[in-house]
Amino acid sequence: MLCFTQALLHLASGSAHPLAKGGSSLGLLKQDWRGSQGWCWMVCVEQTGRKTGTGTLAGVIDLAVDWMTDLKEGVCLSAFWYSHEQCCWTSNETTFDDRDKCPQWQKWSELLVNQSEGASAYILNYFLYILWALCFAFLAVSLVRVFAPYACGSGIPEIKTILSGFIIRGYLGKWTLLIKTVTLVLVVSSGLSLGKEGPLVHVACCCGNFFSSLFSKYSKNEGKRREVLSAAAAAGVSVAFGAPIGGVLFSLEEVSYYFPLKTLWRSFFAALVAAFTLRSINPFGNSRLVLFYVEYHTPWYMAELFPFILLGVFGGLWGTLFIRCNIAWCRRRKTTRLGKYPVLEVIVITAITAIIAYPNPYTRRSTSELISELFNDCGALESSQLCDYINDPNMTRPVDDIPDRPAGPGVYTAMWQLALALVFKIVITIFTFGMKIPSGLFIPSMAVGAMAGRMVGIGVEQLAYHHHDWIIFRNWCRPGADCVTPGLYAMVGAAACLGGVTRMTVSLVVIMFELTGGLEYIVPLMAAAVTSKWVADAFGKEGIYEAHIHLNGYPFLDVKDEFTHRTLATDVMRPRRGEAPLSVLTQDSMTVEDVETLIKETDYNGFPVVVSKDSERLIGFAQRRELILAIKNARQRQDGVVSNSIVYFTEDPPELPPNSPHPLKLRRILNLSPFTVTDHTPMETVVDIFRKLGLRQCLVTRSGRLLGIITKKDVLRHMAQMANQDPESIMFN
Amino acid sequence: MLCFTQALLHLASGSAHPLAKGGSSLGLLKQDWRGSQGWCWMVCVEQTGRKTGTGTLAGVIDLAVDWMTDLKEGVCLSAFWYSHEQCCWTSNETTFDDRDKCPQWQKWSELLVNQSEGASAYILNYFLYILWALCFAFLAVSLVRVFAPYACGSGIPEIKTILSGFIIRGYLGKWTLLIKTVTLVLVVSSGLSLGKEGPLVHVACCCGNFFSSLFSKYSKNEGKRREVLSAAAAAGVSVAFGAPIGGVLFSLEEVSYYFPLKTLWRSFFAALVAAFTLRSINPFGNSRLVLFYVEYHTPWYMAELFPFILLGVFGGLWGTLFIRCNIAWCRRRKTTRLGKYPVLEVIVITAITAIIAYPNPYTRRSTSELISELFNDCGALESSQLCDYINDPNMTRPVDDIPDRPAGPGVYTAMWQLALALVFKIVITIFTFGMKIPSGLFIPSMAVGAMAGRMVGIGVEQLAYHHHDWIIFRNWCRPGADCVTPGLYAMVGAAACLGGVTRMTVSLVVIMFELTGGLEYIVPLMAAAVTSKWVADAFGKEGIYEAHIHLNGYPFLDVKDEFTHRTLATDVMRPRRGEAPLSVLTQDSMTVEDVETLIKETDYNGFPVVVSKDSERLIGFAQRRELILAIKNARQRQDGVVSNSIVYFTEDPPELPPNSPHPLKLRRILNLSPFTVTDHTPMETVVDIFRKLGLRQCLVTRSGRLLGIITKKDVLRHMAQMANQDPESIMFN
Repeated sequence: MLCFTQALLHLASGSAHPLAKGGSSLGLLKQDWRGSQGWCWMVCVEQTGRKTGTGTLAGVIDLAVDWMTDLKEGVCLSAFWYSHEQCCWTSNETTFDDRDKCPQWQKWSELLVNQSEGASAYILNYFLYILWALCFAFLAVSLVRVFAPYACGSGIPEIKTILSGFIIRGYLGKWTLLIKTVTLVLVVSSGLSLGKEGPLVHVACCCGNFFSSLFSKYSKNEGKRREVLSAAAAAGVSVAFGAPIGGVLFSLEEVSYYFPLKTLWRSFFAALVAAFTLRSINPFGNSRLVLFYVEYHTPWYMAELFPFILLGVFGGLWGTLFIRCNIAWCRRRKTTRLGKYPVLEVIVITAITAIIAYPNPYTRRSTSELISELFNDCGALESSQLCDYINDPNMTRPVDDIPDRPAGPGVYTAMWQLALALVFKIVITIFTFGMKIPSGLFIPSMAVGAMAGRMVGIGVEQLAYHHHDWIIFRNWCRPGADCVTPGLYAMVGAAACLGGVTRMTVSLVVIMFELTGGLEYIVPLMAAAVTSKWVADAFGKEGIYEAHIHLNGYPFLDVKDEFTHRTLATDVMRPRRGEAPLSVLTQDSMTVEDVETLIKETDYNGFPVVVSKDSERLIGFAQRRELILAIKNARQRQDGVVSNSIVYFTEDPPELPPNSPHPLKLRRILNLSPFTVTDHTPMETVVDIFRKLGLRQCLVTRSGRLLGIITKKDVLRHMAQMANQDPESIMFN
Repeated sequence: MLCFTQALLHLASGSAHPLAKGGSSLGLLKQDWRGSQGWCWMVCVEQTGRKTGTGTLAGVIDLAVDWMTDLKEGVCLSAFWYSHEQCCWTSNETTFDDRDKCPQWQKWSELLVNQSEGASAYILNYFLYILWALCFAFLAVSLVRVFAPYACGSGIPEIKTILSGFIIRGYLGKWTLLIKTVTLVLVVSSGLSLGKEGPLVHVACCCGNFFSSLFSKYSKNEGKRREVLSAAAAAGVSVAFGAPIGGVLFSLEEVSYYFPLKTLWRSFFAALVAAFTLRSINPFGNSRLVLFYVEYHTPWYMAELFPFILLGVFGGLWGTLFIRCNIAWCRRRKTTRLGKYPVLEVIVITAITAIIAYPNPYTRRSTSELISELFNDCGALESSQLCDYINDPNMTRPVDDIPDRPAGPGVYTAMWQLALALVFKIVITIFTFGMKIPSGLFIPSMAVGAMAGRMVGIGVEQLAYHHHDWIIFRNWCRPGADCVTPGLYAMVGAAACLGGVTRMTVSLVVIMFELTGGLEYIVPLMAAAVTSKWVADAFGKEGIYEAHIHLNGYPFLDVKDEFTHRTLATDVMRPRRGEAPLSVLTQDSMTVEDVETLIKETDYNGFPVVVSKDSERLIGFAQRRELILAIKNARQRQDGVVSNSIVYFTEDPPELPPNSPHPLKLRRILNLSPFTVTDHTPMETVVDIFRKLGLRQCLVTRSGRLLGIITKKDVLRHMAQMANQDPESIMFN
């Protein structure tokens, strides 16, 4: 594996053709190594990501979730570590109908009281289902609380913030990685209304961060490290969904703050390796690299665009409702006593979920199975309740092209069960997302959309069957034709709801057709995505991730917002009129003691250095941390540096009176190219500069004189003020 | 249509929910209108793009090309404006075999000398084929020369440069639009080795430019206009290929310089309307929105990755060869007498192409038909020469799942014809691209790859058939199984060659699977794309578009290059050591005559304004153009402004001795927020700032004193110097 890596390295090395450059071969090698580190890292994270990440991590998560989800209902006698499907897969009765009822798989009631039917067996199973769910959830929330508080949530809002330049220590640490992986399995198995896709992005970023800390090029350069995290996020989505291109685009559209084309190319490579690995381990068992593979037999018709757009509207409304309610609930959690009992909250929500979910077959099973069933077209042999149509007795043989049929009683039962499940899913997801456990939103959102879509689809299908003389149907739906595919409606609905919550566009459509293989349905998917984004944007610009960023007050400068106010830098900079003057250092007239006093009395991250207090001409910027370190070192090691030694930032020492103590030269910690703007610069430009260059602060001058400073915090506060929001809600490191 | 537009506008308006903001309702309406213009434009360009662009333009181009291509061989008797296919489509003999030989369609020899077979008929057809080709080509090159010299080439290098901030007057004008559309039809029909996809991007940008000139928001703001052009480029690819998502990504990855997420969303919308329109007009006649729809019956196997990667290597080598040879030839055209005879050049190349192309069936037909045939899997009934396999007489019925068969004589004939066609295509494309006619590269590159791929595919297939006991085949290719799909190899080869020439990654793969519908073959496609990019990058970092940008010396600051040298701003700025000092204006001590002299003696675009020549403290920047205009106006209108009036840029007039003439206040033309860096700023940072903020110049200061200026030209020259290129080759506006 390593030699393969080395070979790749040489090919892939950023520094291309070594002969095109001059220099000794040692230098060349060094340069090559430096350029290669990017690739080495990528290959490493993927080689390892292949073993621990894709191969083991995602694979183990999938297997463990399957097993533990089934454990809530029963156990496999032949081997207790088999899930229901695996258990019956090995049994002899492999006919389609008997597969669910193989003798090796026993429900708890069968095992414990030897009863498989009847009220008492049902109650026992019900009780044990709830008990297991509570156990899993309690274990998960306790682990998160004790070992890794950062492992909760989806992690995407925080990763967005980190990529924009904010540092949250430990957020991408090894403990977070470990605990998030373990608890993710627990909470998904517990049956809570959450998905594993968002957290897997966080897990991938933790992996990426771990590997980038091994290479000096990345551990030292914050910007490069962020690029690596962008690529890791792409790999995360690729792994989570099996959507390599969708992963890259998700990382580009939703997660990354700044996405240079070089990162695009690396993410693409990462996604290739991820896709290749997925193909090798074949986790979905259909050798198709696709999670919810669908195959429909009919195209869509123009008239169907109307229900598709309606589903888009539904998705937008669901997105708005979800974001508003979820944020209101999370705010309540932050501000009231509710937030003090996270364990209790998780237990209560799990109990409610389990109690309500068990009686309804569409909520009892795992959400991805549900989505898969809703997406599927009804074949003639399908045993599912959703496919209980009344077959025409004159029909000769079940073929691929089954005409529309009237719905049987099973479909009607399924419809009201789905409606109940839909309401339940909508309500419970609002309360679930944001609890102190890992939780993703993709799967619940898609489930909501798929349920609504399938219901609409069955409605349209029955309408078309019973009324094919109506004008709207007459043109495309002759009697006996297969006009409407309810599964397609479910797919469109899922896209619409996911779009309403996250506001993705391109990546959403690509993920959807990578998930389902439905490339021919690109126009319906795009129409639903556009409608749902319009509707949702009409009620509020923020997607769920931005809403959570605002709620938590992370200092995130959204690249999507346009700042159109006509304020100037001088209106935003500190000090304001009437405030104490800016704390500055002078280049050669302050003593060590003066500097120490300044450091003690203020808590700024750094200080501008000027020629003198009178001229105020700016020469550079000194970081607080480096100042403290340099003075400490000098006091310990350097002879003659005492409290009243002069500190100087110039090349040559200032002229000092005789007998004055040895001066302290600090030029090497001086940043000689601080970023400046003039006081007349429009804030629109300043915001643009902060965004594009990822600045933390910027000095304000007029005619070469230092006037003040604008920090990212000031910019964010000013933007909040201009948008009539509370500027004090923004936190800052 | 208009009311639909209005309704969309309100929904889509950038300024979202009007009630969320304060202000009078008139103001709100205004704001809404301002925000809506973006959408109005998009909808407009698409509404119109739907009529003129997608519906008419692309449609008419397609139809005209079909008709004129066939005109070279014959004519339809029933209606001369029918192409071969349309002519025979309406005939009664619609069985599969007879379709090509319907009586209404007559070859020229049949019509003129009433002979369809024989040497003399062949020679007559051959001669007329060449004659038509020459006519078309001559007409095209003459039109381009006389009416719109900018209509030549693919236009993508120029659009990249325009998007990076350079202005080429008339490049996106109405004449260019018209002439490029007409000549595109002519040159494609003439049978030259070129495609229409790249030029369609240029045409779409011309459309976009035309519509954006109608809206004040875009006609005045250069940045916003560029965003619109990015979206137009996306719409262009969508229309050209029927690849909506691929279009957006192509615009992002290849064309755009700066692609904010807002533009992504608008491009997405544009692509949706384009896709919807395509679906409505159904240009490819298969209701699939897919140009080269393929349907393969077998998956791919891991062992096949080896030939796929070989094809990737071939693609990379072809890309390198093509770029090197084409650039060398184009340089020769620029520097020698060759460039003085563009019409002759086109005529000669067309004649050579037609003479060599006619005898070989694979080069005689249009290139997209060729690609389509090469991509296709051989069905049992296929009449194509490429599908002339020896069928097993024991095989009961032709089914979908045809096992690998030994190749028949037709396949062997096809192989050497393909080989000849491949060599011819490779050579002739090098000389064709860059002539003074519209010419795209997508289709010829894909054809080269598809031919090579198909040959490799047939080779592997025959190897597997005859040697399925070899270790490499034993695991996946049992006798009688359908192991190898030669069409898939053609697809992979096409992707590899397109990737080698353009260096696309994500967009390439998305375009390929949108073109073919082959979502399951994402790993082979990605592997080929990655390999071909690696191989090609190893021989030179530049794709064909960047190479042409460099050849033409456009001032393009590539976002992909990393600048890693350790030079400082002070090394690049003007004036250098020993040069005359920087030409500056002082804020209140120069006379009108001084300023006029300065303007006359220099040709700078603008001048920094300082407090005084002694202090050199910077207060702003004045544009040359605005200075000239202001002084001219003042002299004409303002009383008492004479040659020795003092010019001042401060708020208040300077104190002047009595009897001095009326001073001239020019503060309103002063840019009070010029961009500055210090002399110690690393060039790496400066390059980054120029790129991300799209600057044209930047002032250099030290301790508030003005030292010099760095223009974009200086940056580009410095970068060329550092890369050991000739810095004088860069032109600048």
